[in-house]
Amino acid sequence: MTTRSSGKIAFVVLRDGTGYVQGVVSKQEVAPEIWDAFRQLTQETSVEVTGSVRADERSPSGVELTVTGLDVLGSGTDFPISPKEHGTAFLFEHRHLWLRSRRQVAIMRVRHEVVQGIRDFFHERDFTLVDTPILTGSIGESAGTLFETEYFDLGKAYLAQTGQLYLEAAAAALGRVYCFGPTFRAEKSKTRRHLTEFWMVEPEVAWNDSDDNMRLQEDLISYIVARCLDRRAEELKELERDATGLERVAPPFPRLSYTDAIAKLGELGADIQWGQDLGGDEETLLANAYDRPLFVYNYPRAVRAFYMKQNPDDPRTVLNNDCLAPEGYGEIIGGSQREDDHDLLLDRIRELGLPEETYGWYLDLRKYGTFVHSGFGLGVERTVGWICGIPHVREAIAFPRTMTRLYP
Amino acid sequence: MTTRSSGKIAFVVLRDGTGYVQGVVSKQEVAPEIWDAFRQLTQETSVEVTGSVRADERSPSGVELTVTGLDVLGSGTDFPISPKEHGTAFLFEHRHLWLRSRRQVAIMRVRHEVVQGIRDFFHERDFTLVDTPILTGSIGESAGTLFETEYFDLGKAYLAQTGQLYLEAAAAALGRVYCFGPTFRAEKSKTRRHLTEFWMVEPEVAWNDSDDNMRLQEDLISYIVARCLDRRAEELKELERDATGLERVAPPFPRLSYTDAIAKLGELGADIQWGQDLGGDEETLLANAYDRPLFVYNYPRAVRAFYMKQNPDDPRTVLNNDCLAPEGYGEIIGGSQREDDHDLLLDRIRELGLPEETYGWYLDLRKYGTFVHSGFGLGVERTVGWICGIPHVREAIAFPRTMTRLYP
Repeated sequence: MTTRSSGKIAFVVLRDGTGYVQGVVSKQEVAPEIWDAFRQLTQETSVEVTGSVRADERSPSGVELTVTGLDVLGSGTDFPISPKEHGTAFLFEHRHLWLRSRRQVAIMRVRHEVVQGIRDFFHERDFTLVDTPILTGSIGESAGTLFETEYFDLGKAYLAQTGQLYLEAAAAALGRVYCFGPTFRAEKSKTRRHLTEFWMVEPEVAWNDSDDNMRLQEDLISYIVARCLDRRAEELKELERDATGLERVAPPFPRLSYTDAIAKLGELGADIQWGQDLGGDEETLLANAYDRPLFVYNYPRAVRAFYMKQNPDDPRTVLNNDCLAPEGYGEIIGGSQREDDHDLLLDRIRELGLPEETYGWYLDLRKYGTFVHSGFGLGVERTVGWICGIPHVREAIAFPRTMTRLYP
Repeated sequence: MTTRSSGKIAFVVLRDGTGYVQGVVSKQEVAPEIWDAFRQLTQETSVEVTGSVRADERSPSGVELTVTGLDVLGSGTDFPISPKEHGTAFLFEHRHLWLRSRRQVAIMRVRHEVVQGIRDFFHERDFTLVDTPILTGSIGESAGTLFETEYFDLGKAYLAQTGQLYLEAAAAALGRVYCFGPTFRAEKSKTRRHLTEFWMVEPEVAWNDSDDNMRLQEDLISYIVARCLDRRAEELKELERDATGLERVAPPFPRLSYTDAIAKLGELGADIQWGQDLGGDEETLLANAYDRPLFVYNYPRAVRAFYMKQNPDDPRTVLNNDCLAPEGYGEIIGGSQREDDHDLLLDRIRELGLPEETYGWYLDLRKYGTFVHSGFGLGVERTVGWICGIPHVREAIAFPRTMTRLYP
């Protein structure tokens, strides 16, 4: 609710959660107490109004409301966020109120569409949702960045960094499965791409190899982007998102092997050697050379997780891929074919000094009816950030968690 | 994969994640090495077969597969779960393999339908999904049952027991919102209704009062049940679920005030006084008196959470409700209208000795444009357990977490 008025006529922008409409009061046509109450309304006061709706071409909503009755339900006096500029720290400290701004409402609606779109995509393709545990004894990615909690008499539990290992068990039962929940990284990272708590969707498919896996990824991303362009055009407009880049997102995405990527990065002037992982800067440099998302595949084994399948054609590498979003957004997906050979997997677990006993159940999957399978993880906030064209992932989630923020 | 054979003909049940089909091999019609390999197949071996499909009325799938070619991909030797009986502890210790059984597959598919149904229900009604944080500084329900973790330099973070408080902030921005994620209770409870980690959907609606809130609940539950009956009839049959009770689930649900419930419990022989909370036994006793879900509303203020709106007509009580599932399943929903008066809410926070500073943002919602609003939480595992007709919630989630189980 925001107001402005002249001596005889007053305007107020009303918001009800479905949209915005301008209300107008004419001094001549209402009782003096309504005129006075209306003129005294302040930003974010909650009200009940009565009146008549009429078409108005000048209005973005297509209508205007001539207000004849007004009940003030809750005052908005001294609402901390005014239309003037505020610093980022101030806004995040008041995130619970900042969410009411048009821009934040638009981002939340795009996020909703992305999430519902992802679920519909998998539901329509006969995937079964399998919610994987957050409290785990096993470690998915890297031990250095785990949140831990005391777990009754069982010692420590860790907050899951991925549901993948559990999903592999479910894929043996149900074929095509996915999980979709919050994941956690206790990383002391302050980049614009990192949160300590973020949502990730992870499909896992029996009998898919790394190539099938990339095809599923490009289908999913293309579906999500097309759906947002179709159903959230108004929100993207509110966000002043130039949609030209998004309109180009369609399969097939360009594919570049890691080895070719290193060569290409050399040509582009980057100082990187075969064997090193790509950092954010290298990803941006590469992704900017393409006008749609890019797959980089078959990374060196040494810089990727223990569960990825060794490449039979080049054992220095694994059958994996990252997907890099264009326009400087970088990695939004990491995926791989999984090591389905029991002995190779056990060797790798030992080589990395991982706690073997907590992976007993995971090794069982290779012992009893092992099978080719692949999957990936898509980060929701990075995807929403890219689609919305916002610079930092922390605006892509309602209550972001970073190493310096746990409130509100 | 399970096999049986006579001297001349052998059968195998094949599973591919979409369903089951019987494969048949005739000794006369295949090469000797295929016949031998086929007869040696053991449970849970992974295979690739070729053959011809023909209609067979006796088969549950309607077809049978005459196998002519066979590739063994992964042995299933010594698969720990045989068709014979196993103890519960053994099965949960082998949950990663037990998921492959027909019964567990059926439960997972019903769970998927429940979750997708919930999301579709809210999406179709223009709710916006708002994912609320797991890592929180505020405490939602009761401080005694929190998991906690060190959070960088900010002290301790707690794993969320509810997303509701955050959702209330979002409802002020978006009107109708919901969250749907894992929630945590570090409860030393061993009942068949408790998990330490469970999924909960929580809608929150601006301008809904307690009565509207109950109507939304009965619509949601009726929608989910009807959808499972419609789309998961095969799975419910596999689970030998007598669906008669489920077919009666339609609005309106019977409503009983807490005060009337106490009187009724007295008639039914229970030893309970006004002011005491209902326990599992009382809930079951009450729910069994009805043939569909039951609302019990307006509980004593002293036994309910601080954020519930005081009942203006009887300040000893609050405007809340529980929803009790029939057939002995008990509470599946807790909901309430929220206290929207700043001073009453602050009094309550102080009265209970809650850490005021962590609720500053929550009080802000009553300071700036307060509004009538209501919401509720529906527990997924309890709902799935009821629909599937299974006795313990731990079978309603792929990898259950209880005070004695963190593995697999």
